Amino acid sequence: MEYQNLRVNGRRLQESLEEMARIGATEGGGVHRLALSEEDKQARDLFVKWLQEIGLKVTIDDMGNIFGRRPGKKDDLPSVMCGSHIDTQPKGGRFDGILGVMGGLEVLRTLNDNEIETLRSIVVANWTNEEGTRFSPPMAGSGVWTGKLDKHWIYDRTDMQGKKFGEELERIGYKGNILSKPDPIYAYFEYHIEQGPVLEKENMIIGAPEGIVGMRWCDVYVSGTANQVGPTPMEGRNDALCAAAEMILTINALPQKMGGNMVATVGEIHNFPNSRNIIPDHVHFTVDIRSWDDDRSQSAWIDAKENFQAIANRRGCSVRIEETWQVDHMPFDQRLVTRVLDTAQQLGYPVLKMRSGAGHDAGYLSMVAPTAMIFVPSIGGRSHVEVENTKWEDCESGANVLLQCMLQCAIEA
Amino acid sequence: MEYQNLRVNGRRLQESLEEMARIGATEGGGVHRLALSEEDKQARDLFVKWLQEIGLKVTIDDMGNIFGRRPGKKDDLPSVMCGSHIDTQPKGGRFDGILGVMGGLEVLRTLNDNEIETLRSIVVANWTNEEGTRFSPPMAGSGVWTGKLDKHWIYDRTDMQGKKFGEELERIGYKGNILSKPDPIYAYFEYHIEQGPVLEKENMIIGAPEGIVGMRWCDVYVSGTANQVGPTPMEGRNDALCAAAEMILTINALPQKMGGNMVATVGEIHNFPNSRNIIPDHVHFTVDIRSWDDDRSQSAWIDAKENFQAIANRRGCSVRIEETWQVDHMPFDQRLVTRVLDTAQQLGYPVLKMRSGAGHDAGYLSMVAPTAMIFVPSIGGRSHVEVENTKWEDCESGANVLLQCMLQCAIEA
Repeated sequence: MEYQNLRVNGRRLQESLEEMARIGATEGGGVHRLALSEEDKQARDLFVKWLQEIGLKVTIDDMGNIFGRRPGKKDDLPSVMCGSHIDTQPKGGRFDGILGVMGGLEVLRTLNDNEIETLRSIVVANWTNEEGTRFSPPMAGSGVWTGKLDKHWIYDRTDMQGKKFGEELERIGYKGNILSKPDPIYAYFEYHIEQGPVLEKENMIIGAPEGIVGMRWCDVYVSGTANQVGPTPMEGRNDALCAAAEMILTINALPQKMGGNMVATVGEIHNFPNSRNIIPDHVHFTVDIRSWDDDRSQSAWIDAKENFQAIANRRGCSVRIEETWQVDHMPFDQRLVTRVLDTAQQLGYPVLKMRSGAGHDAGYLSMVAPTAMIFVPSIGGRSHVEVENTKWEDCESGANVLLQCMLQCAIEA
Repeated sequence: MEYQNLRVNGRRLQESLEEMARIGATEGGGVHRLALSEEDKQARDLFVKWLQEIGLKVTIDDMGNIFGRRPGKKDDLPSVMCGSHIDTQPKGGRFDGILGVMGGLEVLRTLNDNEIETLRSIVVANWTNEEGTRFSPPMAGSGVWTGKLDKHWIYDRTDMQGKKFGEELERIGYKGNILSKPDPIYAYFEYHIEQGPVLEKENMIIGAPEGIVGMRWCDVYVSGTANQVGPTPMEGRNDALCAAAEMILTINALPQKMGGNMVATVGEIHNFPNSRNIIPDHVHFTVDIRSWDDDRSQSAWIDAKENFQAIANRRGCSVRIEETWQVDHMPFDQRLVTRVLDTAQQLGYPVLKMRSGAGHDAGYLSMVAPTAMIFVPSIGGRSHVEVENTKWEDCESGANVLLQCMLQCAIEA
């Protein structure tokens, strides 16, 4: 390892993260920086300014993806890329997404400080609308770039106020002239917080996911009969909320029933007419099932659907199920995962081979390029909330792993 | 029975109900006429116009309660009163409330047509904001009139848009100059749809409730821990929605567990952050428990609270309970209930002694005057919904019972 003593500037990385955290800062200590909002624009402007300050060529594609490129000696070789996202959840945290973007910037700053020339060019990317909460679906920028989502369909997606993605992208000045499509990539790394409690619990500093679990999203609609609560005897009621409550507990019990490391969650529920003294007649709730084992996930869902029908029948309700979205598990590149594991060990950081329970832009990237991720611990496992936190020294450690992994790839012929 | 062959004009009653149903008519065939809205004002104006057309003295008190008075020969004797309400639930039905007001009007029209003089004066009342869905609490007009609710507290109650009750009352021109307080009442009758399935199921035309069941309203707040669903293992989750789902099923099972004719319902639920891929950390839901047996209701609630605590503990959540409102069962006047039963039988209508599962202005009235109610069947037991319906001939039968009961009282010394 030619540059094995090279390290990032942890203090500078912290300061960059702190400055970014001011854009969309919430009273509760988090960040509210929704995709294509005014805050997203401000943070993008700052990122672009920082890229230009270290002399990088910045390009912006017609999905608003931002790329800062540090040329290599053989610039025609496939490049080494890292990236993540600037946007956050509503009242989200200070690390989710932005750590990977600032981590990549810090790698490039470190290479510049040390006047290191690489064979391959190195690129840091910000992917547009990773979170997908303002505009569904998530990972829109990387999805289009990798050819897996249709750009014009994404342009037409609307937020809750009816504003279109394409128009908002133009409004904030980030609809670039370059066609969104993949360049040849030698290796893609995404540096991210774990967003779960495993690394902290196991006293690890680095996580090396071997891939992303498969996911399925479903929407369930239960219908019963509305009536005044007082004069309607319990017998003969068709209470849609009671049926939904049983279904929610069925979903919660699925992982234990099916075995494996499955998780299953109902995060969202809408009850109608939602009045204290009227028996609910319509409930809509969501189901999110995740597992590395796609077959097990499929069996679980079939089991759940049968249970839903039985519960609805027993309670005199009807149930309609929409299978909204589904993606199989996505394994990362074995060679790159091993590189993350080995690099962390060489740097003296306790490292755990694991799986990512959350979706990331790395999922789409893995379909067009050798891909791996680098995780650092989330304090208390908290994420997508204002108190989301990661120790500054862990942020630095993760960036050092990113630096070394990218550098190793970038000097390989 | 001096006037035992006297009958109301069923056709005229139907036409009045149909004309009222046009004010706030919904596409689904119901009525949306919230308290102190423009529609409430229009329907009040029409009611006042009809009262004046038959020469009645109309008074409006400072709660917006409307009284049409037909003087008796001895006008200083306590009067015979009937009443109900013009306001409806959001997207409510064409009969709830308005049937009792139009029924009372029809009684007075019939007495006029037949030039019948009574000893006591007869009064028909419209009570303001019975429903309580725009402005909580329900039965505000009769509550203040009977001295059980504070007028200035009611004036300050706000709707979802922050508009004050008192200001809205003034805006629609129904804040009268007369102080809202009870006159001496010899007998109060409230004619209403059953809002439940019992009369229809038992093939009855008239219901004579012996009183109103006791009710308690509670608000339950469950708190857990929000986290990204994917990376958070099932073990160690504190899912507030799963805890709430268990609690909802506990409430649903209470009546069978406790016995008696109790009903227990969760009608309203709010889930936070209510995002598909975040474990819910806050749930607020309502509980409504009703029973004729106040002790049983009390025991049920103690049992439920213990269960809530156990569920919360088991799921690593906390629970906070607000006991929002409670009222014991309210028995009506035995003599008047018997009068309703006897009168229905004399008129040849199958009649059932029963209990009211819903609250009514009659509840407050029973605290200051001998009170009874007259129920007619709800088709399919449906109420508080657009398809709420009652046969026209049943509307006529109920009005005949009201006519005979009021007349008997009004000619008594």
